[in-house]
Amino acid sequence: MTDTLNSIAQLVTPCCLIEKSKLQGNIARLSAHIGELGCSLRPHVKTHKSVDVTKLIENGGNVRGITVSTLQEAQHFFKHGYTDILYAVGIVPNKLATAASLIEQGCDLKIVFDNTAMAAMVIEKAAEFSCTFKVLIELDTDGHRSGIEPSSQALLDIAGLVNQSQNIELCGVMTHAGESYSCFTHEEQLAMARQERDLTLLAAERLRAAGLECRVLSIGSTPTAFAIDDLTGITEVRAGVYAFFDLVMAGLNVCDVKDVAISVLASVIGHQTEKHWAITDAGWMAMSRDRGTANHPTDQGYGLVCDITGKALTDYIVNDANQEHGIIRHRDAKQPMNYDAFSLASMVRILPNHACSTAAQFSHYYLVDEGKVIEKWHVTRGW
Amino acid sequence: MTDTLNSIAQLVTPCCLIEKSKLQGNIARLSAHIGELGCSLRPHVKTHKSVDVTKLIENGGNVRGITVSTLQEAQHFFKHGYTDILYAVGIVPNKLATAASLIEQGCDLKIVFDNTAMAAMVIEKAAEFSCTFKVLIELDTDGHRSGIEPSSQALLDIAGLVNQSQNIELCGVMTHAGESYSCFTHEEQLAMARQERDLTLLAAERLRAAGLECRVLSIGSTPTAFAIDDLTGITEVRAGVYAFFDLVMAGLNVCDVKDVAISVLASVIGHQTEKHWAITDAGWMAMSRDRGTANHPTDQGYGLVCDITGKALTDYIVNDANQEHGIIRHRDAKQPMNYDAFSLASMVRILPNHACSTAAQFSHYYLVDEGKVIEKWHVTRGW
Repeated sequence: MTDTLNSIAQLVTPCCLIEKSKLQGNIARLSAHIGELGCSLRPHVKTHKSVDVTKLIENGGNVRGITVSTLQEAQHFFKHGYTDILYAVGIVPNKLATAASLIEQGCDLKIVFDNTAMAAMVIEKAAEFSCTFKVLIELDTDGHRSGIEPSSQALLDIAGLVNQSQNIELCGVMTHAGESYSCFTHEEQLAMARQERDLTLLAAERLRAAGLECRVLSIGSTPTAFAIDDLTGITEVRAGVYAFFDLVMAGLNVCDVKDVAISVLASVIGHQTEKHWAITDAGWMAMSRDRGTANHPTDQGYGLVCDITGKALTDYIVNDANQEHGIIRHRDAKQPMNYDAFSLASMVRILPNHACSTAAQFSHYYLVDEGKVIEKWHVTRGW
Repeated sequence: MTDTLNSIAQLVTPCCLIEKSKLQGNIARLSAHIGELGCSLRPHVKTHKSVDVTKLIENGGNVRGITVSTLQEAQHFFKHGYTDILYAVGIVPNKLATAASLIEQGCDLKIVFDNTAMAAMVIEKAAEFSCTFKVLIELDTDGHRSGIEPSSQALLDIAGLVNQSQNIELCGVMTHAGESYSCFTHEEQLAMARQERDLTLLAAERLRAAGLECRVLSIGSTPTAFAIDDLTGITEVRAGVYAFFDLVMAGLNVCDVKDVAISVLASVIGHQTEKHWAITDAGWMAMSRDRGTANHPTDQGYGLVCDITGKALTDYIVNDANQEHGIIRHRDAKQPMNYDAFSLASMVRILPNHACSTAAQFSHYYLVDEGKVIEKWHVTRGW
């Protein structure tokens, strides 16, 4: 790239920066924790959708395979050499052709479903293909979203159906305790993590007691992955957002604000001094519309403002956003603005509420270290 | 394209559909209204970021030039033959090189600023280039965001600075009454439209009285563009979202729900019958995180659900969303779900809160008519 080792002040705004040292620190922290518990990580690439980030995660150690949220991600990462892939969103029959194409090219793809009727439809459709589809049954361990009850008859019904099918292979169970995003203390996160683990172990025991296969026990969310203290019997942990971290995770005390590796670089394009506003060119198209901290004790608006070096200006948030305009003001609307920190045409960095949604607004990241641009990384997208 | 004239039921979900007849109807309605008032439209392409949509808008008549929200849009549309372009976000000096490159290639680009100090910085930087930069001064006519007071001394100061500069040419003034998005009745929208117009006329009169140039008077937002009843003295009206319309505009009664041309096609991937949920593969990555109707009398969640033909199932909304999961339930959480309308693997269409944010989540649209795919249109993005 032409701007290697250039100062970030030379970048055109808005753009997305990743702090290399923070990214590596975050990766090392979870890799070490999961390694100490004798388990493996299957990182979720949906947060960053970047092969380059994934390579750094692999370098962190204790990684086996990846998790994707779309078949497009599966195709992209397979093209870049990743073969052990879990597509962790419930499949529908009309996506099997894409899955089959990947499998026939050598991809060790795993799909999921959570419903007897859907299992029957997938089994019927699968007969049209010559490959074998590996499947995990999705469990609901927190009432958050998808999955079946680990103690339900449906678990055994689905597994039994799969067991009788010709080209679907039951590999095990998976769950995601997304409700951990509502756990604001370590104690709550640990309790949620143990619940996620224990209900998964229960499902596996029930399958095995019925003479059915369950060699994969896949669990995880960023808060529960860090909180869990014993992973005996669990074969893999999935997490994604931890690589970048964000204000939602900082709000849950899973990380500190200074650990957030992702930021949006913005230019101050105007002042509305009577309202104590500074206006930047990072609106919601750059930040995303994610207001993930809206129900947190500390609402960070559309993002927390830092100076160009990344030092948090903790009193200032992006209070409102239009498509290409961000409105910065003091957290306390009655306070005047320190315009010395927001001079016209100067640059600031904004930490996002939610790394996954902000990252997806960009087609590339600038990897930065000590104010210099080191690399420009491609981000994939779509379905 | 290979799937021309295929049924939309054959598309891979989630994907973005544009109903051709609704798009054309929306375009015709505003073109006719602005034409009747003897004025011109400068459509804002930020909503759709699509050359194909813009061609249809031009066919609607009374169009002169386009408006863009990023210099990347300017570059993209210039490459596709559009030369008369207003970049309607305040410029900073480090974007002048990109602007100059466009101008030197023959683009009739107009830039904006709203601050005396910024004007001085831009004038100084502009001296590095051999081209002339055309500028509009941005006015604040509604207290919504950017711009200077039309009655302020700053207006004359900025215009005077520009007038003395060597390669900045003052063309006129522009404003956007974004506060019209808080006007829920036609009367309020008309009052806001007249205020937007009258304060723009006032600014122009003041500039002319001072012997300064003001040949362009550019105003607009979708609600005020439809509401305004007299455009005497105004040279152009800008609007973007009207081409697609969305639930925010329907909530303001600027359009009807049946006019919304954009929808996200989704597959039902699961049921949580105890909670009366249907889960689809259109999460916030497809819908965007935009909750623009959250403060409306009718909160539409993350979108209003329609059957695959586009008929609104008015009791059902996307109540919550994760990255690749959308949770549909009855508007009234206590009501049971009619699962006949949400059978597993069936498809639904979701009308979005905000067309601009949902459209930007996709790299292409499928233009559809009577359930058939007619064309696949590219969407540009980035900065």
